[in-house]
Amino acid sequence: MNKKIILLGATGSIGVQTADIIREHKEEFQLVGFSAGKNMDTARKFLQEFSPEIVCVQQEEDAKALKAEFPAVEVVFGNQGLIETATYDADILVNAVIGSVGLEPTLEAIKLGRVIAIANKETLVTAGHLVMDSAKQYGATILPVDSEHSALFQSLNGEKREQASRLILTASGGSFRDRTRAELENVTVQDALNHPNWSMGSKITIDSATMVNKGLEVIEAHILFDFDYQDIDVLLHRESIIHSMVEFHDTSVMAQLGTPDMRVPIQYALSYPERLPRPEAKRLNLAEIGKLHFQEMDYERFRALKLAFDAGIEGGTMTTVLNAANEQAVAMFLNEQIKFLQIEELIERAMNEHAPIYSPDLETILNVDSQTRKSVENMIK
Amino acid sequence: MNKKIILLGATGSIGVQTADIIREHKEEFQLVGFSAGKNMDTARKFLQEFSPEIVCVQQEEDAKALKAEFPAVEVVFGNQGLIETATYDADILVNAVIGSVGLEPTLEAIKLGRVIAIANKETLVTAGHLVMDSAKQYGATILPVDSEHSALFQSLNGEKREQASRLILTASGGSFRDRTRAELENVTVQDALNHPNWSMGSKITIDSATMVNKGLEVIEAHILFDFDYQDIDVLLHRESIIHSMVEFHDTSVMAQLGTPDMRVPIQYALSYPERLPRPEAKRLNLAEIGKLHFQEMDYERFRALKLAFDAGIEGGTMTTVLNAANEQAVAMFLNEQIKFLQIEELIERAMNEHAPIYSPDLETILNVDSQTRKSVENMIK
Repeated sequence: MNKKIILLGATGSIGVQTADIIREHKEEFQLVGFSAGKNMDTARKFLQEFSPEIVCVQQEEDAKALKAEFPAVEVVFGNQGLIETATYDADILVNAVIGSVGLEPTLEAIKLGRVIAIANKETLVTAGHLVMDSAKQYGATILPVDSEHSALFQSLNGEKREQASRLILTASGGSFRDRTRAELENVTVQDALNHPNWSMGSKITIDSATMVNKGLEVIEAHILFDFDYQDIDVLLHRESIIHSMVEFHDTSVMAQLGTPDMRVPIQYALSYPERLPRPEAKRLNLAEIGKLHFQEMDYERFRALKLAFDAGIEGGTMTTVLNAANEQAVAMFLNEQIKFLQIEELIERAMNEHAPIYSPDLETILNVDSQTRKSVENMIK
Repeated sequence: MNKKIILLGATGSIGVQTADIIREHKEEFQLVGFSAGKNMDTARKFLQEFSPEIVCVQQEEDAKALKAEFPAVEVVFGNQGLIETATYDADILVNAVIGSVGLEPTLEAIKLGRVIAIANKETLVTAGHLVMDSAKQYGATILPVDSEHSALFQSLNGEKREQASRLILTASGGSFRDRTRAELENVTVQDALNHPNWSMGSKITIDSATMVNKGLEVIEAHILFDFDYQDIDVLLHRESIIHSMVEFHDTSVMAQLGTPDMRVPIQYALSYPERLPRPEAKRLNLAEIGKLHFQEMDYERFRALKLAFDAGIEGGTMTTVLNAANEQAVAMFLNEQIKFLQIEELIERAMNEHAPIYSPDLETILNVDSQTRKSVENMIK
């Protein structure tokens, strides 16, 4: 196996861990290109370590600076640069950017029939039908990177889709699992960023605390695996050891378990259909853990998850609104412009104010996306 | 799918549940033959219900009686009859007899390249190398029926054997899980027959209480899946919900879960590689169960399990001795001739007194088997 990899979003948590996997398997993987946003330190570090052929940064002046330092490398910038990077000659595109900026580059890479490892769930939530239809049309393969979807994908491996009856996504409950809604009234940004199991970026950690993250995952699962929303369950499982499960129509349940290490699903997406050894990695020790807990989801307590199901069942541009409203609201929460519980309030208001458009094209989606962000921004003025 | 099924051991717990599955899926399965030992009631009932073509009973006089009642059916008897039944024209042979009497009929069916669903673990424990070598030679398929091995088989489905690093068999701990060795001193047959999770025959329920059953399963797993004993773990898991797991070299663990219903693995063996619906069956509800417990195995407390590992690692006829000594000792315990803890004492003594023969042929195995039974019988005289 020698696979050329393009990594969009190299500086985020998934990006850094994808680099770990490439570093651990130099024979198997080669980083030929990446995007680094505004993070010039990481851009320089990766350029030195991995000697890629193309790099993308957000700003033109950063691109110029890098080009001066690394004249042999193709240096691009901005949205157009992201598309050039995504479509650069390679075997796998890892989409690990944050937010819906990953959508267009992914669609362009799909047109080339590439293997796309998707860690950027907003791409699927916002425009899942375009991505999946297009992947079908151009013969592209979409592989999940999220631990839950990787678990579902692994549990479905070797099985027939029509013999699977239910997806069971597990949810740790995030940093506020054991707090009542009243206790959420005055939580701080710092409280919310303290996730019990996973070490992740700040956007996704807030999404875990609101349970919007699980909601996006439900929509993503619907899109990736083609299950009706009524056949997707969310189960509270505080230890995050069973990463998700699939129930089959003979009542058998297949599950994938592991330590909370994102490098396992990342590597699986890169090595699929093979599994590569990780001899240094910690093995799962259930005897040491002792107990696994499971609890029914409380949709009143976790109202944002209910909103996500509602948006998914409504369909059309409603999931775009859910995602855009959430991105805007989380940014405002991280800026301390709104309180924690306002995140879901603003999402709900944006959804209530939106008349969904069905089977939207890319332009419509991008319009709805930016309009939603603006209107959510204006809601607190 | 329309599969003709031969069922050896129709009257035992697995046999009766196999009949349930055939009854639930009349379009898919047809019972063309079965053996019923001495149980004439079941023989008559099955002959009326399933209209098979051949039936085997243990005694000649029973065969004569059945022939008079069902003149259109081929009625055979004894060990030779069991072989005739096993090799009768069919798609799948379900070997659900108890004890090593299932060995020869299985070997004969293997020579015909049949699919063999093995619920009779003694066949594999006693003569695993003959069975597997022969299956390879004649292109026969060996499918597990035991819930643990079915779970391992399902977890390995779609995967590459060489990428799997460890088998993790779960063990409920049997009816005496929470008792110390001192508390086992005077337990009765009735105490031992009271298994917390599974409803099974008396031999296997005693084997669960002694943990010999898990030991036989370890040996069976070694034989079926070709894992070294050092790569097979046993994990105490009192709820028996995770039926077993496979760890892969990327640290991922795949598991099969379910309610404690033997009909699920039985059906899987019959329907493999498909899964058939069981719309009436109870679904697994982890939220209702709430907690799953895991605990390291204590090999001093469960000494018989250690003996099984020892026998497996020693190899050759030592596993035959383990199995034969256990069958004899359990029979003596059920007859109230020995105490519960003497079961493992007699097994250990039989193993200590045996000089193993390596790569034994069938005759050697059968000799060692009957000699062991005799010597264990004589140990208490």
